[in-house]
Amino acid sequence: MQDCLFCKIVEREIPAKIVYEDEQVLAFHDIDPKAPTHILIIPKRHITTLNDLTEEDAALVGRLQVTAAKLAKEMGFAEQGYRIVMNCNEDGGQTVWHIHMHLLAGRSLTWPPG
Amino acid sequence: MQDCLFCKIVEREIPAKIVYEDEQVLAFHDIDPKAPTHILIIPKRHITTLNDLTEEDAALVGRLQVTAAKLAKEMGFAEQGYRIVMNCNEDGGQTVWHIHMHLLAGRSLTWPPG
Repeated sequence: MQDCLFCKIVEREIPAKIVYEDEQVLAFHDIDPKAPTHILIIPKRHITTLNDLTEEDAALVGRLQVTAAKLAKEMGFAEQGYRIVMNCNEDGGQTVWHIHMHLLAGRSLTWPPG
Repeated sequence: MQDCLFCKIVEREIPAKIVYEDEQVLAFHDIDPKAPTHILIIPKRHITTLNDLTEEDAALVGRLQVTAAKLAKEMGFAEQGYRIVMNCNEDGGQTVWHIHMHLLAGRSLTWPPG
């Protein structure tokens, strides 16, 4: 997608502090962190919102959770814990139109989640 | 798992307001809702925390997002938006030891997410 911020990060047209990459997934630090660790995990393929997911995308989007757990172990906060969040459209607070998972850790996350 | 609340809901040993079920996934209303719509979406198979996920579980856990999007459309809040959240261990605020996705909708969710 020509004007998508996250597609440009995937293409290395815009810099980001990348912490993980494989064929389908990219993870990088959020530029406006809301916890000591705040990472965004995205599918490289452009998907605009969660509403655009089909049954065929299950394995791809499930790799976001699997990547979150992998990063939690590698970065040392798996046992202490973390929260993962995805926002859809206005009520969810979505601000970039390429689906992304927020991974927050390093502090006690409160409830409700926003 | 003998003492798992959500396994007992899957087995109909404990009642819940179920809104969706298929072979792998169950969804029901949270008993302590934090938004006008607050649904929990779980894999029927017992998985204790996100840390227990393996690469082979990607398609299963991805079905949680796909189910969230399906419910959002069916229940009429897909366009207005929603937030999905999963908590792991103490810092995440996990309280039931069977992984579950919170689907919150019906109000403007704030940031940060807890």
